[in-house]
Amino acid sequence: MVAAEDNPESFFAAAPPLRDADAVAARLGEFIARNSSAAGAGGGGRRIVCVTSGGTTVPLEQRCVRYIDNFSSGHRGAASTEYFLKAGYAVIFLHRRGSCQPYCRFLPDDSFLKFFDVDAESKVQVAECHAPVVKKAIGDYCKAIEGGYLLKLPFTTIFEYLQLLKMVATSISSAGPLGMFYLAAAVSDFYVPWDSMAKHKIQSGGGPLDMRLSQVPKMLSVLRNQWAPLAFCISFKLETDSDILIQKADMALNKYKMNIVVANLLATYKEEVIIVTDKERSTIRKMNKDEDLEMQIIKILSQNHSKYICGSTNGCVQSPD
Amino acid sequence: MVAAEDNPESFFAAAPPLRDADAVAARLGEFIARNSSAAGAGGGGRRIVCVTSGGTTVPLEQRCVRYIDNFSSGHRGAASTEYFLKAGYAVIFLHRRGSCQPYCRFLPDDSFLKFFDVDAESKVQVAECHAPVVKKAIGDYCKAIEGGYLLKLPFTTIFEYLQLLKMVATSISSAGPLGMFYLAAAVSDFYVPWDSMAKHKIQSGGGPLDMRLSQVPKMLSVLRNQWAPLAFCISFKLETDSDILIQKADMALNKYKMNIVVANLLATYKEEVIIVTDKERSTIRKMNKDEDLEMQIIKILSQNHSKYICGSTNGCVQSPD
Repeated sequence: MVAAEDNPESFFAAAPPLRDADAVAARLGEFIARNSSAAGAGGGGRRIVCVTSGGTTVPLEQRCVRYIDNFSSGHRGAASTEYFLKAGYAVIFLHRRGSCQPYCRFLPDDSFLKFFDVDAESKVQVAECHAPVVKKAIGDYCKAIEGGYLLKLPFTTIFEYLQLLKMVATSISSAGPLGMFYLAAAVSDFYVPWDSMAKHKIQSGGGPLDMRLSQVPKMLSVLRNQWAPLAFCISFKLETDSDILIQKADMALNKYKMNIVVANLLATYKEEVIIVTDKERSTIRKMNKDEDLEMQIIKILSQNHSKYICGSTNGCVQSPD
Repeated sequence: MVAAEDNPESFFAAAPPLRDADAVAARLGEFIARNSSAAGAGGGGRRIVCVTSGGTTVPLEQRCVRYIDNFSSGHRGAASTEYFLKAGYAVIFLHRRGSCQPYCRFLPDDSFLKFFDVDAESKVQVAECHAPVVKKAIGDYCKAIEGGYLLKLPFTTIFEYLQLLKMVATSISSAGPLGMFYLAAAVSDFYVPWDSMAKHKIQSGGGPLDMRLSQVPKMLSVLRNQWAPLAFCISFKLETDSDILIQKADMALNKYKMNIVVANLLATYKEEVIIVTDKERSTIRKMNKDEDLEMQIIKILSQNHSKYICGSTNGCVQSPD
């Protein structure tokens, strides 16, 4: 028997099945077909990016009370989605349920109600000082939804995430090099296989708890080699130890044949990232506190994607006019 | 050496220190002193309840990327806080950062922006259909904040939670039997002691991961026996297996000398709970879909608390008029 870590198919075979898989596949197929046949910015179809965002959970019990989670607010994925939409991409936002949402980043974590006033006519309205931000967010959000450029797909567990990623990747492959993966989600490296998992809540009282976690198969290789071989692929590398960051980023670039790896440290990920390709490393820093680092990141990635599309189609597709 | 699971003090000694502990202690002391000296509903001081809400995390690395989490939206704690405030209690809302907040339960998880309209004068306002709910929430929230009846204290890890709980309990003890604990938080049973924890992100690639988790010391005994011996204590028992639920609730009642245990099953916790005391068990069910189960729960608990105060003070304190 081949261990699941060497064999993605056995991971999928043993995973609890995705709910509403057929309905999700249908929405996804329609979204990709419509956008890839629409006129894109440089002629050809519209570019489509799958942004993954937030952390995946690893249930420790089948009827899940406890789980292992990965740190991720989903802020980077949400912000990046906004800038991809602005750059003319259609976005499949594959996100952790409850994580930060595009155009909702302005919302305070707490004291949400301070946002509102009740005016003289007893109408509830957004407080004056917040109104411009909210108004812009609503406008941009409505444009994305009404235009049909944004498809949101939620996940919670590693099982849901990888099944959805496979579904998106095999669908997006029809868009060829116009497809992009921006893999910002914090994906679990270790998990408890479903069939070896405790059915009920693990009881305390019996002394220390020993757990053995298996490695999650590395799906980046499968994504690249089988699911969507022509898509432009960007993965993220988050470390806490700066000594090994670049080495790990280079390894991901070579081993999984990513086009770009965005490397960042937990302590500074909001202020600085390093964009690593096989040709160069460039450090991107936040210029001022009101600027989103994602604005610069998406600009660079979009330029690199353009070059990639040109290369893939043997010469750039010209704008129709 | 005594293991931390038998010795709460060694748990605290080894825990990473709480940030801003002095400032939190000062706010807490002021809140409790002011409310317990204010006139309460039945004469004497105002009753003060500490509602704990949401799940605690167990970091697996000191610079935390991965952690074990407990399932809890915080919905029950947030709803209960509203009903405690309505019943005249001052509430210390000890909650998981990012969990459900009082008076914010109406907010959709997703598609939050659908809540707003931009009117003809370009003013951002809450959509007509949601306005009554939002207006009531803002009104109730402002009343609680302006009256000084609600103190919110956030936590994330088990280390923060238990240090804050100890701080609240030792402060609230000055209110004697007017103090109440409503322990709805989902607290980790197992943890990795800080000093045996990996400093950096655990690297994958080396095969399966073996972990040994220690038991978190049972702080309910310490709360009851040392920190706040006169407070009225309610703990929760959540199980996935109905066969052991009542047995576990009875055990908690006896072992930790709780006044009441609220027992619930993961599959039905929104519709049904069993209120367990040493005298009786009563099942509370949701009457209709728009009613909060917490309305009934808090009514019963408040009545039991009244009897407890009467008993503790050798005869009921009469209303002054």
